[in-house]
Amino acid sequence: MSGRNISIYPGSFDPLTNGHLDLIERGAKLFDQLIVAILRNEGKTSLFTADERKEMLCASVKHLANVSVESFDGLLVRFAAEKGARVILRGIRAVSDYEFELQMALMNRKLQPELETVFMLPGEAYSYVSSRLVKEIYRLGGDVSDLVPPIVVERLKAKGSI
Amino acid sequence: MSGRNISIYPGSFDPLTNGHLDLIERGAKLFDQLIVAILRNEGKTSLFTADERKEMLCASVKHLANVSVESFDGLLVRFAAEKGARVILRGIRAVSDYEFELQMALMNRKLQPELETVFMLPGEAYSYVSSRLVKEIYRLGGDVSDLVPPIVVERLKAKGSI
Amino acid sequence: MSGRNISIYPGSFDPLTNGHLDLIERGAKLFDQLIVAILRNEGKTSLFTADERKEMLCASVKHLANVSVESFDGLLVRFAAEKGARVILRGIRAVSDYEFELQMALMNRKLQPELETVFMLPGEAYSYVSSRLVKEIYRLGGDVSDLVPPIVVERLKAKGSI
Amino acid sequence: MSGRNISIYPGSFDPLTNGHLDLIERGAKLFDQLIVAILRNEGKTSLFTADERKEMLCASVKHLANVSVESFDGLLVRFAAEKGARVILRGIRAVSDYEFELQMALMNRKLQPELETVFMLPGEAYSYVSSRLVKEIYRLGGDVSDLVPPIVVERLKAKGSI
Amino acid sequence: MSGRNISIYPGSFDPLTNGHLDLIERGAKLFDQLIVAILRNEGKTSLFTADERKEMLCASVKHLANVSVESFDGLLVRFAAEKGARVILRGIRAVSDYEFELQMALMNRKLQPELETVFMLPGEAYSYVSSRLVKEIYRLGGDVSDLVPPIVVERLKAKGSI
Amino acid sequence: MSGRNISIYPGSFDPLTNGHLDLIERGAKLFDQLIVAILRNEGKTSLFTADERKEMLCASVKHLANVSVESFDGLLVRFAAEKGARVILRGIRAVSDYEFELQMALMNRKLQPELETVFMLPGEAYSYVSSRLVKEIYRLGGDVSDLVPPIVVERLKAKGSI
Repeated sequence: MSGRNISIYPGSFDPLTNGHLDLIERGAKLFDQLIVAILRNEGKTSLFTADERKEMLCASVKHLANVSVESFDGLLVRFAAEKGARVILRGIRAVSDYEFELQMALMNRKLQPELETVFMLPGEAYSYVSSRLVKEIYRLGGDVSDLVPPIVVERLKAKGSI
Repeated sequence: MSGRNISIYPGSFDPLTNGHLDLIERGAKLFDQLIVAILRNEGKTSLFTADERKEMLCASVKHLANVSVESFDGLLVRFAAEKGARVILRGIRAVSDYEFELQMALMNRKLQPELETVFMLPGEAYSYVSSRLVKEIYRLGGDVSDLVPPIVVERLKAKGSI
Repeated sequence: MSGRNISIYPGSFDPLTNGHLDLIERGAKLFDQLIVAILRNEGKTSLFTADERKEMLCASVKHLANVSVESFDGLLVRFAAEKGARVILRGIRAVSDYEFELQMALMNRKLQPELETVFMLPGEAYSYVSSRLVKEIYRLGGDVSDLVPPIVVERLKAKGSI
Repeated sequence: MSGRNISIYPGSFDPLTNGHLDLIERGAKLFDQLIVAILRNEGKTSLFTADERKEMLCASVKHLANVSVESFDGLLVRFAAEKGARVILRGIRAVSDYEFELQMALMNRKLQPELETVFMLPGEAYSYVSSRLVKEIYRLGGDVSDLVPPIVVERLKAKGSI
Repeated sequence: MSGRNISIYPGSFDPLTNGHLDLIERGAKLFDQLIVAILRNEGKTSLFTADERKEMLCASVKHLANVSVESFDGLLVRFAAEKGARVILRGIRAVSDYEFELQMALMNRKLQPELETVFMLPGEAYSYVSSRLVKEIYRLGGDVSDLVPPIVVERLKAKGSI
Repeated sequence: MSGRNISIYPGSFDPLTNGHLDLIERGAKLFDQLIVAILRNEGKTSLFTADERKEMLCASVKHLANVSVESFDGLLVRFAAEKGARVILRGIRAVSDYEFELQMALMNRKLQPELETVFMLPGEAYSYVSSRLVKEIYRLGGDVSDLVPPIVVERLKAKGSI
C-alpha cells in the first residue's frame, strides 16, 4: 500500500496565510505526499497571479520534503485523478466554512466516488485568519506580519497600495 | 515513513450502525492500520456490554485486513499513545455534530499536540443514522435491518424487548 | 383530492405552550385536517400525564374546527399511516432545532417514503418559548401566564410546587 | 375550503436542477395547485433568459397536472397575493440555507401576515446540488447529466462554452 | 473609573434601520458614551453617501444625549484607539451573523488586545431587518416605513427609483 | 450615571475553569461592578457544593477589586433585580452555545425588559474548555492544571477519585 496516500490541498492562496501553512505542515505529517494545488481562477480578479502565488508557496514549504506545489484549472476531481491522489485535504475553521465544505465534498464524491475529502483543524491561533481579511487589513494600513509568511509581507510591500 | 499512519476510530458503538461501518471502510482505505476503539463507558448504561459490542464489530469488519477492534477506558489520547497512533478518525454528519467534535479535537490536541483529528463524511444514505435512533426505532417495533449490519439485527432480536 | 391533506403535529406538550398553539393555528389554515398527536412517552418522567396534556390541548384548540387531539405511542410513522396522514408538521425556531428535526425527518422518510415532513415558523414572539423553559421558570416562581394558555396556568397552580 | 391551497415555489432556476424537480414533485402531492414562479432578476446576469428557464421548467413538469409555471418580478408577496396563494414553498438543504430562508420568511410574514412559508426537504441525493455548482461544473467540462433534467443538458450543450 | 466606557458601534448604515436604532438605544443605556461610526467604504457602491448617512443618523439619535455620530475609514481598531474607546458594540441576529462577527472580533483582538467586542441582541421585531433587505423591498415597490426611521423613508422617496 | 453598570456573570462553576476566569477579567474591565453569581442548582448533582465553589471563586478573583462572588437560587432575573444589576454577562464560545444563550437572553428580556444580556468572547486558548470536559479528563486521570486555577487542582486532588 506504499505511495497510496497522495493528498491534494487545493485553494486560491491569494495570498498564502499562516493558517494555510499550519495546515500544510499538519497534512505533510499524515500523508506520504501532499500536493498544494493552486486554483488558477482565470475568471476572478486575484491580487497575485498564479505564478506569484506559486512562488510564495514554494518558498514557504521548501522545508517540507514531501510537499510540492502545482497550479491547476478545470475540475479539481480531474486534477486529483491525473495526480493519482485519493484524498482532498481541507481545513475547517468555522461552522459556516464547514457547511460549504460539506457540499463541495459531497459533490466531489458524486463526481468521483473513489476520492475522499478529509478535514483537519488549523491551530487555534489561525482560526480567524483568511486571505480576504489579510488583504483588507493590509489595504487599510494594518500590520499583517503575524498573519502571513515573511515572503508574503515582502511581496505585499512590493505591490504598494492594493 | 512506513507504518506511521495508525489511526484510531473511537466510539461507543452501542450498537454499531451501517453509518459507522461505512466510515470504517472509508478510513481503512486511507490509513495503514485502523483500530476501532470501543469506549467501555463503565459509568453509563449501555444496551450491549463492551464484549458484545466488540463481537459485533469484529464480525462486521473481518473483511477488512488492516482493521482491528479493541476496547478501552481512560483517556483517548493515552490509548492512542499506547498504540502509537497519530490520527483520530471521526465521522461528521450534521453541523451540531461538528461543533462538539471540534471542541473534543481541540481538547485532545491540547492534551497531546502530536495527535491529529481528521474528519471524514459517511455516505449520504447514513447521514441521519445514529445508535440512539436505531435503539429508539427498534424499541418502538420498527424495522432497523437497513440501518445496522445483520449481526446487530440478530443480537437485538436475541435481547427481545429493550 | 379532497381529504388528502391530513396532517399530524406530534409532540410531548408537557405542557402546551403559546408557541405550540400558534403553530397549530397556522397549520389549521393550511391543512384540511390537523391531528395534534401527544407522544405518551411512557419511559420518561413527565410533569403532566398524557390524559392531562390531552385535556389542556382539547380545551385550547376547541375553536379550531378541523383540529383534533389524540395520543399515541410507538412509531410516529405507524400512527401517521393508521390515520391516513401524509404530512408531519413541525415548528422550527432555532438552528439547533432544525438540525435535529432534519435528522428525524430523513429517518421518517426512510421508514415511510410517502410521508412528508413540512416545517413552519411560529410567530417570533414565541421563538424562545419551550415546555422545558416554562417548567423551569414556573418552578423558580416566575410568571408564565404570557407563555402558556390560561388552562395550563390553572393546572400548574393546581399542581402546586413542581 | 376548496382551492385554498395554492402554493408558490419561487426561485431563479438558472438552470432547473434535479433537486428543484424533486421538490416540485413533493410539493405537488401536498398542495391543490403549485405555481413555480421564476424570478426574472432583470438586474442580475443570468445564464438563461427568463423565457428559456420557463421553457425548460414547462418541459420538465408537464407530467404534473396541478403544477404551472410563471415568471414574475417585483415583490414575491405581491405576486402571491395576485395569485390568491397562501403558501410559499421552499426547500432547505443546509443549515446556512435555513438561516437565510428564515430571514426571508419572517420578512415576508411582516409584509403580508396571511402568507405562510413552509419548508420541505429535497431527497438526500440532491442535498448538495445547486444551480451555481451545476454551472461551475459544466463550465469546467464536468458531466452534469445526473444533476439536471435532460432538457437542461441539451440547452447547456446548445449554449456551448459558458 | 468615570468615562472609561466609551463604546463604538460601527457599520455601513446604508441606510439606518429600526434594528440599528434599537441597538443604539440599548447600547446608550450601558455605556457612558456611544459613538456610532459610519464606515465610509470608498471602494464599494453605496446607495447614500457617507454624509447623507450621517445626517440621517444624527437626526435619528438626537434624543440620546450620550450618542454621537462620526464617519471613518481605515482600520476600525485604529479609529477606536483615536477615540479612546475600549469597546466595540455589535448586534447579532442570526447564527450566520454570529460566525462572521466572531472572526472579526478575534481579528480585532489580535490587532489590538485591549479592545473588547461585546454583542447585544436587537429586539426580536428587528431580527430579520437588514439594510440590504430594506433596499431590496423599496426597490421592488414595497412599504418600508415599519422598517426604517421616518427620515430614511423621506430620503428614499427623494431618491426616487433606486 | 455612576454605579449604573452593575453586571452579573452567572454560572454553575462546577468547577471554575481558566475560561471562566478569563471572562471575569475581561468583564471586570468593562463594568463598574461585576457579581459572579453561582447557581446553587439544588436539584442537580454537582461535584462541589455551592460553598466550595464560592471559596474557589473568591480565592481566584481576589486580585480584582470590583468583582464579588455570591450564590443564588430562583430566577436569575430576580437576583439581578435585587442587586440592581442591569446587565447579564455571558461568554460565548461555539455556535451551539450561542443558540442556547440566545434563547435564554430573549426569555430573560421577556421576564424583565430592562435587563440586557451582553456577550463577550473568552480568549481563544479557552474556547474548548468547559467544566464538564475538565471533570471528565480529571476522572480519567488526565492533567487539568492548564485548564483550571491552582486552587481547583488542589481541591480536585483533595476529593480523590471523582
